[in-house]
Amino acid sequence: MVSIKERRTIRKYKEDNVDRELLNELLETASRAATMGNMQLYSVVVSRDDEMKRKLSPLHFNQPMVMNAPVVLTFCADFNRFSKWCEQRSAVPGYDNMLSFFNAVSDTLLFVQNFCVLAEEAGLGTCYLGTTLYNPKGIIDTLELPKLTFPVATITVGWPDECPEQPDRLPLSGIVHEEVYRDYTLSDIDAIYERKEKLEENKRFVEINNKETLAQVFTDLRYTKKDNESMSSGLLETLRTQGFL
Amino acid sequence: MVSIKERRTIRKYKEDNVDRELLNELLETASRAATMGNMQLYSVVVSRDDEMKRKLSPLHFNQPMVMNAPVVLTFCADFNRFSKWCEQRSAVPGYDNMLSFFNAVSDTLLFVQNFCVLAEEAGLGTCYLGTTLYNPKGIIDTLELPKLTFPVATITVGWPDECPEQPDRLPLSGIVHEEVYRDYTLSDIDAIYERKEKLEENKRFVEINNKETLAQVFTDLRYTKKDNESMSSGLLETLRTQGFL
Repeated sequence: MVSIKERRTIRKYKEDNVDRELLNELLETASRAATMGNMQLYSVVVSRDDEMKRKLSPLHFNQPMVMNAPVVLTFCADFNRFSKWCEQRSAVPGYDNMLSFFNAVSDTLLFVQNFCVLAEEAGLGTCYLGTTLYNPKGIIDTLELPKLTFPVATITVGWPDECPEQPDRLPLSGIVHEEVYRDYTLSDIDAIYERKEKLEENKRFVEINNKETLAQVFTDLRYTKKDNESMSSGLLETLRTQGFL
Repeated sequence: MVSIKERRTIRKYKEDNVDRELLNELLETASRAATMGNMQLYSVVVSRDDEMKRKLSPLHFNQPMVMNAPVVLTFCADFNRFSKWCEQRSAVPGYDNMLSFFNAVSDTLLFVQNFCVLAEEAGLGTCYLGTTLYNPKGIIDTLELPKLTFPVATITVGWPDECPEQPDRLPLSGIVHEEVYRDYTLSDIDAIYERKEKLEENKRFVEINNKETLAQVFTDLRYTKKDNESMSSGLLETLRTQGFL
């Protein structure tokens, strides 16, 4: 499918709004994604209001897409709705645990990606904000998410006002394993990352940051052990307060 | 897009094989999905061999699709490849934690759903096996998954030999929240689940199982608190042995 093959992340949007009817149509079609036992363990909070986006923005490290996109969607794992239904129907829900959380996360992310494919097919641009799990507590407070829900993914949506280069991808042979996982040898790793390491923009990236290797840009600057560990603590703590752990 | 709108889970497949070239083309295009920092934190293990499928089958509660589909794909969160690259490039990886696990899970599930959309667009049928997280340890052993990988989703793939009814979905209004999460009142819940509860097949389902309500079929039989808690323990334990917790 051309829209998937030609996909790029869009961070700059025209001022035009995204009609509520169009958005709802895309979300409704997206809900055709596979879902565990047809429980549909997700919700989505639509932010259009500038005031709400201003509150969300710092929680996403002030990435400009939050303020500039006409629509910000926060997709949440949701066992609240289903559990409320159970309680109202003389059934005792048992979804305050990690397996249930993961089931809801899976449902949510399949729904998210289905939505993104549909939005892009309709000519919209999207950006997936990886920051949602960095500060879930702040997002929970801002969007008033109740127990047994959890923000999993944030997507900014709007009409594209740029057409950036497509980023590189690893060769498929580095990702696919036949029958069993064939662990990577030193030369496998060299071959898989060769293209990425040879890209001019990546070489510049290493230089600008005064690093020896591209990998060090990731480990020392972008995704550090210290940050990951500190945010993992916050994540586990928030899973506890949301009732999943 | 028609293929998403008309989507149904396919559990019965023709005997025809799925060409390796076609499968690889679909997987390669699927890898255009958004990925955290362009790290592509996933791998996929392709099972075609009957011997391997026979080992996987009980781990998926002997659901017949595992043996009957020409291809079984196990999609894994993977920080092993990336960490090996770091180590080989004088960089110290810090991805043995829960945040990193979740980042890899997100990458994986976006890739999974992109693949499913593309496969269905190409006329293939897919079934998402929710059982992958029920017994991750068994799958890890069978597919020889190393530390810092984790099986997240299993998809059976083949040429459809059935065209089942599309399952119901909740009304979109029950899933979308404007600006903040509006928690559900008693009458909201009644309205959201009304269609599902009135379906003849669901009424039969309640009757056959000697239950009072459809919700009880879920809580007492399909997804019980006891099972969820026991499998949550296994899940956390396996996250530990795989190096993420």
